[in-house]
Amino acid sequence: MPYTAINFQQKLSLFTEQWTPKVIAEMNDYQFKIVKLQGDFVWHAHEHTDEAFLVLEGQLRIDFRDGAVEIGPGEMYVVPKAVEHKPFAAEEVKLLLIEPRGVLNTGDHEPSELTAVNDVWI
Amino acid sequence: MPYTAINFQQKLSLFTEQWTPKVIAEMNDYQFKIVKLQGDFVWHAHEHTDEAFLVLEGQLRIDFRDGAVEIGPGEMYVVPKAVEHKPFAAEEVKLLLIEPRGVLNTGDHEPSELTAVNDVWI
Repeated sequence: MPYTAINFQQKLSLFTEQWTPKVIAEMNDYQFKIVKLQGDFVWHAHEHTDEAFLVLEGQLRIDFRDGAVEIGPGEMYVVPKAVEHKPFAAEEVKLLLIEPRGVLNTGDHEPSELTAVNDVWI
Repeated sequence: MPYTAINFQQKLSLFTEQWTPKVIAEMNDYQFKIVKLQGDFVWHAHEHTDEAFLVLEGQLRIDFRDGAVEIGPGEMYVVPKAVEHKPFAAEEVKLLLIEPRGVLNTGDHEPSELTAVNDVWI
């Protein structure tokens, strides 16, 4: 039976749009999503879940109300649930997100044009 | 307030032993663990959970009863729950594992000298 690994670069090559997470794998009720970000997002929080960010390429900053964390390639950070945060990237950054199925990218923030369609597989 | 990303290379530099997963982060009730593997493991399954493998360095093969998957750097694979598998690496491979807190590395296989102490943080 053929088994094939999921290659992040190959998946990233399939789209160019930013701020639109794409699901590449599931583990139980959690999803692995890749996304390309650039610029400033909205302040938001996820009331019921932590959120893991792994940087694949580029540099991500996550602002908190009282500080910020810089995350580069080969680094990760877990934003605790209910903590307000705002991702920012001066240049395009390519990320792997891990969070439960059903989490919206804008969290508890009022849905806007930044709210991505959920559960899009690539 | 100071916030610091988790750097995989820095964490990997803190130990040399193989087959002993070390926890580097938690997301809800899931753990991120790094581990160095070389050689052949035991056939085992995890009856109640999927298990995610992300290769950081080196080449991992996961054998299944009816095939195998090769996973290199920048690649991942999710072994479904209850599926028998056996990791193998000809040369040392460095991995990130993601699975629920409390999962033993040898799964439902009879505990042996390969069964690592659980929940060791680094």
